[in-house]
Amino acid sequence: MSSFGQLFRVTTFGESHCKAVGCVIDGCPPGMQLTETDIQPQLTRRRPGQSNLTTPRDEKDQVVIQSGTEFGVTLGTPIGLFVPNQDQRPHDYSETDFFPRPSHADWTYLQKYGVKASSGGGRSSARETIGRVAAGAIAEKYLHTAYGVEIVAFVSSVGPVEMPFIQQMRSGKTDPGFFTLLNEVTRPQVDADAVRCPDASASPAMCQEILRAKEESDSIGGTVTCVIRKVPAGLGEPCFDKLEAKLAHAMLSIPATKGFEIGSGFPGTAMNGSVHNDAFVSRTDEQGQTTLGTTSNYSGGIQGGISNGENIYFRVAFKPPATISQAQNTAKYNGEAGVLAARGRHDPCVVARAVPIVESMAALVVMDAVLIQHSRTMSTSLLPVAEKKNPLMYGI
Amino acid sequence: MSSFGQLFRVTTFGESHCKAVGCVIDGCPPGMQLTETDIQPQLTRRRPGQSNLTTPRDEKDQVVIQSGTEFGVTLGTPIGLFVPNQDQRPHDYSETDFFPRPSHADWTYLQKYGVKASSGGGRSSARETIGRVAAGAIAEKYLHTAYGVEIVAFVSSVGPVEMPFIQQMRSGKTDPGFFTLLNEVTRPQVDADAVRCPDASASPAMCQEILRAKEESDSIGGTVTCVIRKVPAGLGEPCFDKLEAKLAHAMLSIPATKGFEIGSGFPGTAMNGSVHNDAFVSRTDEQGQTTLGTTSNYSGGIQGGISNGENIYFRVAFKPPATISQAQNTAKYNGEAGVLAARGRHDPCVVARAVPIVESMAALVVMDAVLIQHSRTMSTSLLPVAEKKNPLMYGI
Amino acid sequence: MSSFGQLFRVTTFGESHCKAVGCVIDGCPPGMQLTETDIQPQLTRRRPGQSNLTTPRDEKDQVVIQSGTEFGVTLGTPIGLFVPNQDQRPHDYSETDFFPRPSHADWTYLQKYGVKASSGGGRSSARETIGRVAAGAIAEKYLHTAYGVEIVAFVSSVGPVEMPFIQQMRSGKTDPGFFTLLNEVTRPQVDADAVRCPDASASPAMCQEILRAKEESDSIGGTVTCVIRKVPAGLGEPCFDKLEAKLAHAMLSIPATKGFEIGSGFPGTAMNGSVHNDAFVSRTDEQGQTTLGTTSNYSGGIQGGISNGENIYFRVAFKPPATISQAQNTAKYNGEAGVLAARGRHDPCVVARAVPIVESMAALVVMDAVLIQHSRTMSTSLLPVAEKKNPLMYGI
Amino acid sequence: MSSFGQLFRVTTFGESHCKAVGCVIDGCPPGMQLTETDIQPQLTRRRPGQSNLTTPRDEKDQVVIQSGTEFGVTLGTPIGLFVPNQDQRPHDYSETDFFPRPSHADWTYLQKYGVKASSGGGRSSARETIGRVAAGAIAEKYLHTAYGVEIVAFVSSVGPVEMPFIQQMRSGKTDPGFFTLLNEVTRPQVDADAVRCPDASASPAMCQEILRAKEESDSIGGTVTCVIRKVPAGLGEPCFDKLEAKLAHAMLSIPATKGFEIGSGFPGTAMNGSVHNDAFVSRTDEQGQTTLGTTSNYSGGIQGGISNGENIYFRVAFKPPATISQAQNTAKYNGEAGVLAARGRHDPCVVARAVPIVESMAALVVMDAVLIQHSRTMSTSLLPVAEKKNPLMYGI
Repeated sequence: MSSFGQLFRVTTFGESHCKAVGCVIDGCPPGMQLTETDIQPQLTRRRPGQSNLTTPRDEKDQVVIQSGTEFGVTLGTPIGLFVPNQDQRPHDYSETDFFPRPSHADWTYLQKYGVKASSGGGRSSARETIGRVAAGAIAEKYLHTAYGVEIVAFVSSVGPVEMPFIQQMRSGKTDPGFFTLLNEVTRPQVDADAVRCPDASASPAMCQEILRAKEESDSIGGTVTCVIRKVPAGLGEPCFDKLEAKLAHAMLSIPATKGFEIGSGFPGTAMNGSVHNDAFVSRTDEQGQTTLGTTSNYSGGIQGGISNGENIYFRVAFKPPATISQAQNTAKYNGEAGVLAARGRHDPCVVARAVPIVESMAALVVMDAVLIQHSRTMSTSLLPVAEKKNPLMYGI
Repeated sequence: MSSFGQLFRVTTFGESHCKAVGCVIDGCPPGMQLTETDIQPQLTRRRPGQSNLTTPRDEKDQVVIQSGTEFGVTLGTPIGLFVPNQDQRPHDYSETDFFPRPSHADWTYLQKYGVKASSGGGRSSARETIGRVAAGAIAEKYLHTAYGVEIVAFVSSVGPVEMPFIQQMRSGKTDPGFFTLLNEVTRPQVDADAVRCPDASASPAMCQEILRAKEESDSIGGTVTCVIRKVPAGLGEPCFDKLEAKLAHAMLSIPATKGFEIGSGFPGTAMNGSVHNDAFVSRTDEQGQTTLGTTSNYSGGIQGGISNGENIYFRVAFKPPATISQAQNTAKYNGEAGVLAARGRHDPCVVARAVPIVESMAALVVMDAVLIQHSRTMSTSLLPVAEKKNPLMYGI
Repeated sequence: MSSFGQLFRVTTFGESHCKAVGCVIDGCPPGMQLTETDIQPQLTRRRPGQSNLTTPRDEKDQVVIQSGTEFGVTLGTPIGLFVPNQDQRPHDYSETDFFPRPSHADWTYLQKYGVKASSGGGRSSARETIGRVAAGAIAEKYLHTAYGVEIVAFVSSVGPVEMPFIQQMRSGKTDPGFFTLLNEVTRPQVDADAVRCPDASASPAMCQEILRAKEESDSIGGTVTCVIRKVPAGLGEPCFDKLEAKLAHAMLSIPATKGFEIGSGFPGTAMNGSVHNDAFVSRTDEQGQTTLGTTSNYSGGIQGGISNGENIYFRVAFKPPATISQAQNTAKYNGEAGVLAARGRHDPCVVARAVPIVESMAALVVMDAVLIQHSRTMSTSLLPVAEKKNPLMYGI
Repeated sequence: MSSFGQLFRVTTFGESHCKAVGCVIDGCPPGMQLTETDIQPQLTRRRPGQSNLTTPRDEKDQVVIQSGTEFGVTLGTPIGLFVPNQDQRPHDYSETDFFPRPSHADWTYLQKYGVKASSGGGRSSARETIGRVAAGAIAEKYLHTAYGVEIVAFVSSVGPVEMPFIQQMRSGKTDPGFFTLLNEVTRPQVDADAVRCPDASASPAMCQEILRAKEESDSIGGTVTCVIRKVPAGLGEPCFDKLEAKLAHAMLSIPATKGFEIGSGFPGTAMNGSVHNDAFVSRTDEQGQTTLGTTSNYSGGIQGGISNGENIYFRVAFKPPATISQAQNTAKYNGEAGVLAARGRHDPCVVARAVPIVESMAALVVMDAVLIQHSRTMSTSLLPVAEKKNPLMYGI
């Protein structure tokens, strides 16, 4: 359906050529300061037309809060967000409309619903992600205020051009620079790069790869890596709603994604347990409490489906965009073979624009997990401490 | 939580050393023939002790249907399934209990709940998957009866030893043998191999790799690939519950998983759109209806989050098991550094046993999507056909 | 939360003085003709200012469909509905603001959220029901088109003035005129009466009662009875989501409601089973099929939580409105005793305006139950018919 | 479906003649002391055969906790509960089986599922309530431990014999003795009476009424009133999940219920607002904090869908049991008219046995609302206090 989350629940609406897109956010904690200025920056970051590497269309996505706040404070009631579509006219009929676009959703939407948006894209359009990004910004505001959580995503590969840590992970080697990067990378650093890759050694080749695809009227895929810092330990619900399971769900719900890996991911399958296991070590947390940390972090900050307080990091695969500016041999809706002519100008690679979307979906997952864990924490705090008949149950 | 699915909903219960594990399956279609013999085979396939490559423990997991059927027919009411635990005693206290096991869930469960099963494992134990496998077998029974759906998973890599298609996909080449395998592979073929890999060229090296890990008191990871054949087109719910998003969620909820990729996955990010796009072609389906198919299948059978009728295939990454038979430097619950001694004998690699679990979770996802789409299909069928004012909306 | 329904899910947003109120309707069957003209009539029926019996405020509640349809046909995607608030300014500060209004939600909202809308009402305002009524109109459109379902609510009592069937039910007698009315009453008939009571013998005394309350600067309660005709048999989900349980949930979620009874309700508790039992009788349905009906209908069209094809009817109690135009002895937020002065002009009785709200919530419940049952019906239809080993299971 | 609750979620399974009935309780707070002795008493209270007023069958319903606790402490993981059925054989075939029993669920189950339990009753049997009562006992344990919550239900009418407060409420008069009773009544007091009515002036006539029905081979309905004391203020989720809406849902999901009213209920509709409004007054709560209470309690402890800290009380209507020991004119499944002969001995009135079921469902509703509100409370507590730009928002 079009809702995501259990206690922090987002419901989105809107096709590419309808009157408006938007969302309703139910379950935002009351008493939080919130205005449009908390939301707009991420929406602006996802807008197209920000460099010569992306599509030249320009859309003004100005969000307006319709409900759920007063005098800049959340009421705890649903927050309605609303972004009018600039171009509300279904497009003109043309020869290309006889074809379902290859690897697009035109044909599957028709199979599912028996009818589809005349523009084809409909809900599979990237415009649907506006609601997610807006909601994610609100979740982030809470997480940062309450826990100092920081979420930063960046482009880690474009086509075959990868940041070095990927290859190193693949050969079972640790790249200490990568873990330092995860600790330190910021959004301004990411945005300072044309392709949103914070690794100056890899970025130029990535740009090159995108420009090449563009020149060849083709497209290219890539990956986005995301780190979430200062996540409290204890988030994630066994067994089906493990934190990494919800992250995977969230990421694979983003248009054009084909894969998700957490921590050591696919490369980690080639490691031995004796290397891969993250040994525990005593650590002092930000409140000065003694707790446990781990000396390595192949787990990606989650063990048994529950956050352990280390950095959570994961990587998301994006396929080459299906819309390309060259003719394609394919078939019409009626089965007739034919050539789908090239049309318009398009984004040769989506990963740079996907960065804030990945961050937003990550924020939604962590936020929901936080709200659920808050219920448990407070519920147990009201109980008398049980007699500890078996110390094994308490780690003592 | 411990429930999965919206209309076909499974709720599991049980720790490793409690009285029993089991599940309740709500929403099974009424009027389907079902007895324990439909469920037991997959449970037996997930049991340990089936070859010298897995752990030598032997557990008899005999399922009993408690409710929801009469005279071998489902009533449409909840099906209670129940498997008693053989060993219900919490284990004896020992030195090792002062340590949270590295990369296990001991510490995170304690952080989350403030208390944990004395055995440590609790719900993170592989025994929890019994309920999933039993439920999956029921889902599969329906899917096969109604649509002829076939779900077959197999081991595609162990450590660095990979079936060849993986490397080929990584270099942007198509491996026609792989797509033939996806069309034809069967469970008996898979089970005929000691490591459940249907590729005789790769299997011996995989076995070798596992035996090596075993000898070295170590463990090793791997991947499982799964194909779902004859899935009807139209399954999956935009936008958040795309079919691949639910599959990713399901797979990452299996213990020890670290990654998921659908269709071309991570390797596909290096391709160009002009290669990656799956062109349409006219096809005659099993009912003799003319429909569209695709000439390639990099999409993995899903486009825009909706099944297109082609084979759905995906790959799941499993980390090296955290339990190893060698000593580890780590810290105690109280923060004191120390050496966690080796203990017992354990499974050096989980992928072979994971095969039926992957199949079961896949079945649960597809089943739920089928039930949801059935509602839509029947609902629309009761409406008069709307005047088709804009042919673009109907692909005509 | 602010969502209702499982497959036909409505999410509302909006306070009384924010920018807009509205809702998102997810799960509407695709291919249904739908424009604003299908929705506006019920919104207009719930507007205040329609007679001298209701509050003189005049609000223009013009709904606009933002998404989910094209060329007047539903796409199956979320339908965003939006009604701007005319008066968006929080009201001026006054002496009365120091008091939580007795039997209003001011104080409980503050207890729940730690903050409340400055206007007090917030989400507890009747404006929130706009989203429900709009969504209900869409549900009704489907139900009427697919099954000919008719939903008609009417005022059955105002204060102590009751339609005669209520007293008769209370004394265990059948009122045949009541069951005829349930079969035949229409919305135009209901609207033709100033108080929306279709019983000319009771209506004048009801009006009198309301005018008396108005003159005395007081308010008065009442009840609304609703009938749902031509509901297919088989709706409602045992055990927790019995059809009457969902109806009760829906009705008690309407502001100012205090009770719900189905069929014989509270009066039926005084009957003997030999009278109360609804005997079966052979009947020919609208499609000419032989089926069973019942000779009486104390069950109210639902048995064991499942619709039986007879008229569903129920009654809802509305308390006297808490806002009255006379001074009240009460306490301030700070605990200080005082007199809350009278303010403004208000609705002395809400039942007439509640009529379309009751109908709308009934439509939402039945619609969701229909969509869920459609899934089951189609799922079973794809199975081979099981051998009927025990005829008791099939009523043969 | 067969699940109830969002964070404290109960899933029940079991028909009357299957192997076992039971439930899974997900979301119980960890660290709470819990053994079977906390659960058994309420199960025993719901057993038949406790006086000559109820059915003489004797069933031993001994509950066993299968999972979710260790050493008498909850782990926070799902609690599996299991009660074997004594009589697992489907009953013998007889003439009566050709008839769907009037006002039973035989026919509607067949319409819904196309198949039904051969015993007819299936899930509509009162045995299904075992799972609810067991789960309710766990919820109550938490609520009592954490907040001192007390839930007491009692029989308030049998047939036309009512406790006096009902008639007084109907004539708009306050019965101070009733509100004293709500404050003080205990379960031992209730159980001391044969019909579980704590009013010695009404009880003998109620017994008489039941014995009369029994002698006449007939049945009789009645009502159960329930009070929930010491509920914290702030529970209940606007707008659709108001606390009274969830209570109504819960109560109407109990077999044989026909109505629900909260606080002044249906009788309150005849009152004027000036009488019905519950004025505020300063009060000191149990922690010695100054807060607001109300001088009267027509609201029933809930305003705007949110608990206000006063006693919550409501009344539930139960119809006369459909199973009666006299012949009935009705029709067979095949439509043929006939006489359904009397069979066996049955409960002439269910209200006394329903008492613990009403209490249990009330506990489930309050428990879930508590867990949801705990999330909100803790979430807001982690935010800095916002600048109070508009004091109206904070009641200052």
